[in-house]
Formats: sequence, structure tokens, C-alpha cells
Amino acid sequence: MASPKKSRNVLLYAAPNSNADMLWFSRFHAGDPFLAFSSKGKKIGIVSLLEVTRAQKESDFDEVLNLQNILTTLRERQPDAGVAEVVAWAARKYKISSFSVPADFPASLYKQVNALGIHLDIGTVPFFPERVIKTKQEQEWIRAGNKASAAGFKAVEKILAESTIRKGFVWHEGKVLTSEKLHLAIERACLDNGALNVTGLIAAAGDQAVDCHCHGNGPIRANELIVVDIYPRVSATGYFGDMTRTYLKGKASPAQRKLVETVRAAQKVAFAAIKAGVLGADVHKKVASFFIEKGYNPGVDRGYQVGFFHGLGHGLGLDVHEDPSLGLRGTKPLKPGMVVTVEPGLYYLGIGGCRIEDVVLVTKNGCEPLSKHPYRWEFA
Amino acid sequence: MASPKKSRNVLLYAAPNSNADMLWFSRFHAGDPFLAFSSKGKKIGIVSLLEVTRAQKESDFDEVLNLQNILTTLRERQPDAGVAEVVAWAARKYKISSFSVPADFPASLYKQVNALGIHLDIGTVPFFPERVIKTKQEQEWIRAGNKASAAGFKAVEKILAESTIRKGFVWHEGKVLTSEKLHLAIERACLDNGALNVTGLIAAAGDQAVDCHCHGNGPIRANELIVVDIYPRVSATGYFGDMTRTYLKGKASPAQRKLVETVRAAQKVAFAAIKAGVLGADVHKKVASFFIEKGYNPGVDRGYQVGFFHGLGHGLGLDVHEDPSLGLRGTKPLKPGMVVTVEPGLYYLGIGGCRIEDVVLVTKNGCEPLSKHPYRWEFA
Repeated sequence: MASPKKSRNVLLYAAPNSNADMLWFSRFHAGDPFLAFSSKGKKIGIVSLLEVTRAQKESDFDEVLNLQNILTTLRERQPDAGVAEVVAWAARKYKISSFSVPADFPASLYKQVNALGIHLDIGTVPFFPERVIKTKQEQEWIRAGNKASAAGFKAVEKILAESTIRKGFVWHEGKVLTSEKLHLAIERACLDNGALNVTGLIAAAGDQAVDCHCHGNGPIRANELIVVDIYPRVSATGYFGDMTRTYLKGKASPAQRKLVETVRAAQKVAFAAIKAGVLGADVHKKVASFFIEKGYNPGVDRGYQVGFFHGLGHGLGLDVHEDPSLGLRGTKPLKPGMVVTVEPGLYYLGIGGCRIEDVVLVTKNGCEPLSKHPYRWEFA
Repeated sequence: MASPKKSRNVLLYAAPNSNADMLWFSRFHAGDPFLAFSSKGKKIGIVSLLEVTRAQKESDFDEVLNLQNILTTLRERQPDAGVAEVVAWAARKYKISSFSVPADFPASLYKQVNALGIHLDIGTVPFFPERVIKTKQEQEWIRAGNKASAAGFKAVEKILAESTIRKGFVWHEGKVLTSEKLHLAIERACLDNGALNVTGLIAAAGDQAVDCHCHGNGPIRANELIVVDIYPRVSATGYFGDMTRTYLKGKASPAQRKLVETVRAAQKVAFAAIKAGVLGADVHKKVASFFIEKGYNPGVDRGYQVGFFHGLGHGLGLDVHEDPSLGLRGTKPLKPGMVVTVEPGLYYLGIGGCRIEDVVLVTKNGCEPLSKHPYRWEFA
């Protein structure tokens, strides 16, 4: 991929709390959209007067401008001046004739600004290729996210250890254990580690887990595989953790045991294959072939995808799914400093699902873990 | 505002977890972006194969299509086919020549689809005017959000009641009370009510609260006003609550007491003025005048906006800030079924800040509360 010109002036209009590029660029946490751009390497934010003081203190902006002040001036001449006119004003003031905007820049503003004679050039995807390579600091922030995930697993394991089995169900504190109870215990544990499960979490048992994005609901039976996938966002930094463990309360069948052992072995195959220079797609294919060698074929059963049917992993950072891909889309060589999840999984109706997920840093010669938690899965 | 043509076919590409229009349209909770459109009044979603089963079960879509299947077919002829080509495919299949897209539709996709000969028309703001009028069900969902906010206030009040005063600071459980401790207690209380503070929360004391978006940090002193603003999102529905109370541990000064009493009186002025047919801006101006009559002038003090300098309120729903405005932007008549926050506030360095916020439903002849919590503020 061509690296972006050093001299390009970027322009963003988004809310950092829901737009990772904006959060990366501004390092400012805010829920409402605002304008930000660069000029000669400086970062400039144009924010609501309610955010000016906070942006000056908390953001990475070299300069913070007050949107209302600019609008007041512009509206003396043009009463209906809006955000597009503010962009044109900034272009004049900073002598910028064209901006590079991200693919998800709002179409309406794109059209309006172009109509005012400012050229907007839609940039690369990812918009900030630098964001894909994580700094030491970012690696630590991701590690903190995974620490929150691990706290969630500890909460689940405590519940499973305390549980008993009666009438085919798992019981805890006098009631049948449910996915919902696991969700709440996990959310509390994440919160105590400064992280929120902003896009949900998964604690799904039995055939529910075969639908690999099902969050899980209702009673949990004994002797069922329980997939627990925890991807919380640390509030202070915006960085995500993302880890999965698979559990079972009771006694595993030979088929369940073989499934879990094969998924764990597949994860090791992946760890051994990941290093700078290899293609994410090739690591994915290696794991897919490994599963087939072990007798686990993909397919469709009663409308459900079964086998190993999702990508092996994805980049992790300010988005829970970001570049690079460790799936078939991963057609560019991995680079040192990239951070990816490694999450092989197998899913079959009747046996259930198993996914095991950790996070690694790609290095020159291999990869290093950024997540840490044991793999104990059976609770008798 | 002209109501949208009944026959328009809308097209969205967004992640419902970070895009309220998409969540409203699909009622499907997902973290990754996907395509959705309407055809002859039917809602159609084109989602990743990982989401197909869940979308069929959980979403409002009349039809759920598998993105990968469509791409596989398209790529037999055009190996680099992507989302834009999928839109063109859908337009052909459903005999649609033009779509209405929201203002925040991604610019890149907008350009690509237009280049394929499908006309995209950028729609009104708000894109779904129907979303501004809340159904009975939505009113209940907002009430549930406010119940989570109220649970947060109860947690704060418990801490303040249990606290003692020593050396000018508030002490709780053997330590000086901090904003951070209040944040965590509030987040736990919200979580136990099924809600997450996804865009933060405010517990800011003394002059910190004068910067009205400052979340607050560090030790809390006795005899300081503490602004607590809690706007959590209920995970199951996506709807927000939004309420504010202002507290003080110790003894209020006459200036603080007058400030709090005036803000509470201003809120009653607003409640009395809100009804269908009036302009949000006029309600705002009435409150602004009331404050000036009482001797509270707006201005700037040492770089800080002081007095009443923010809007009186805003719409609340799947976004924490949405239409209509109860500020100067509120230039269209309020309608029955709109839901707005009512949050007068006064802020002065040295005295501190006070904001009191509730949520009301606009009715034909007035307004009805959708939030409920006492106004006790002094804890001796």
C-alpha cells in the first residue's frame, strides 16, 4: 500500500466515541461529532463551546477553535452558514485547497464542501495506515483491555466452580444458571477493571453457540460447551480487549473433548505461523486445513454454518474489528507492531461450539502474547 | 417539515451500535456495519453470514440476505466486486432506480454507487422524522433509561449520607471521596439496571463543574456543589436515560443555596412552558430571561463561559442528543410525542455549578415526566 503523502491535510467530521479514526487523531473522548483537520502537520479541532476548555486540556489538538465563534462571524454575512461553510473558512484561513477525508466521511458534508470549491479526496482504507501499527503504549492499552476480559473469565470460573448439577441443569445460588447471570457477572468484573462491554458480550451454551454471534440466553444445561467471548472497551483509553474461552460444567463427551483439544491445537498452529511477512490469509488457510485434516469439515446443517466458518482473527485497537485481517481478506504481509486476535473455532449442532481466542503482537520473527489467561475448561 | 414520501426507498450502511438511524430501522444490535434498504415498504438487510441467523431471529427485517453469497456470485464476473456492487445488484433485483440515504452515509460508498448509475438522494435531517415522535413503547424504554440514572443518584446519595467531613474534604470508607469513586458507584448501579454509561458520565465538584462537560476527577471538598449527570444506555433496547442532580456535602453558602433554588425554579418555568405548538427556542429564551431577572447574567470569566450558556434541553432516544432542540436551534413547533430533556443550569467560578435535568414527553396541552427522582441536594 502506498503510504500517505506526509503533506496531506486530513479532514474529519465524526464523534470520537463512535469513530476510531477521530479518537486516534484527536485522543479526545466526546459523544457528539465535530470537525478536525491537519495543516502543516498540526492538528486543529473545531469544537462546540461546551467542549473548548476540555479539548484544550485533554486532546492532542495543537489548536482548539470555538465552533460557535466561527459560526457567529460567518452568519453576519450568510445567516444559514453551517459546518460546510466552517470547512471553507478553515481552508481559506489555513491556505488549504484540498483535504483528504476518510471513506466514512458524511456524504452530505462531502457534497456541500465540494460545492464550495474545496476539493475533498477520499483517502485510503484504512485512512491512517499508522493506526494499524501499535506503539508500545497502545500495546499496553490493549493488554489492559484483555486484563478486563480475563477478569470476566475469572468471574465465570468462580460461578462454575461454585455451581452444582441437578436435573440436567447447572445451579448457582439456588437457581438455574442462565446466560444472563453470566453476562452480568462478566460486566461487573469488566467494570471493576475500568472497561465496558459496549458492543455486547457472549456467554452462549450448547447449540446457541453454533450461531457464533449469538449472545446467549436462558438456562444453561450440564455437560454443554459454553462459549464465553469478552471484548470490552477500556473507558479511559478507548482500546478494546478481545478474548474467548470455552467451558463445560459436568462431564465432557469424547466428541466435545476432541473438539476443544483440536481448537486449542489449532490456536498453537496459528501462533507458530504468525510473523512479519506472512499473509493473514495464509495463516487462516493453514488453520482451516488443519481442521479438515483432523476430520472437521465445514458445511451447512439445518441452515447453520458448521465447522470452521469465520476468519481466524482480526486487528484489535480502538475498534474491536479492524485491520489487518487474519482471514481470507488478509492478502497483505503482516508487519511488526500489528496486533491481531487468534480465534479458531469449531461449531456443530449436537456437539456445540468451541472458540479459543487470544491476542498477539506480530514481531519480526513470530508473535508475542498480549493476553493471558489459563485454558482450564472442565468444571466437574 | 415535509414528511418523507411514503414511497421513498431508503438505503443505509452503518453499524447499529453506533448509528441510531440504523438501529431504529433494523432494531438489530450489531457492532459492524452492514447494508439495509427498503423496497415497497419492506425492510431488507444484507448482513455477514455470521449474522444471518441472528438477524432472522432478532431484527425487524422482512428479508435477510447473506452478503457473502451475493459477493460470491458477483465475483464470478467481477473479482473486485464490493459493497457498491452489492447495492447495484439489489437495485436491479428490486427494480429500484434511486435510494434516499442519510446525511451521514459514507462518502466513499456514495460516490461509488452513484458511479454505477444508481441515484442516491441525500435525505432530510433527521433522516427518519418518525423517529422524533416516540411511541408508547419507546417512552417506556426511555423511562427505563432514566430508572438507571435514578439508581445512580441513589448510589451517590448513599455515599454522601455515609460520608463524614474532615480537614475540608469529604471522607468515605476511610478515604477522601473522589469523583472517580462516584463514577464507579454510578456505573455499577446503572449496570444492575441493564444500562451502560457508554459515552461517560459526570460527577464533578466545585469549579470543575463550571466546565459543563468535564467528567470530574480527584478529591471532593466539603461545602462544594457536585454536579452529577447520568446518561446511560439500556443495552437491551439502545435507548438512553439522561438526568442530572446537584449535591453538596456539608453546609451550603447563601450564594450556593440561591443558585440551586433558582435552577430548580427555572426548571419549573420550563415545565410550565412546554407543550405542543411552542418553539423549543422560545422555551429556552424564557428560561434564559428568568435567570437574568434573578440576577444571573451570562458572560466569560477567566476563559470560562459562566451563567446559563448551554441549551435548555434536547431530544432523547436512541441518541443521547437528538432532535428536537430546546435551545436556539429549536425553531420548529414541538409536537405531541416528542421527548426532551429539561436541564437548566448556572455556573460561576467560586460558587460552582448547578444543573437539574429531567425528561418529559410533550403533549397537546403540556408535558408529562418520563423521569422520576427526588431533588434533595444537601447532605449535612
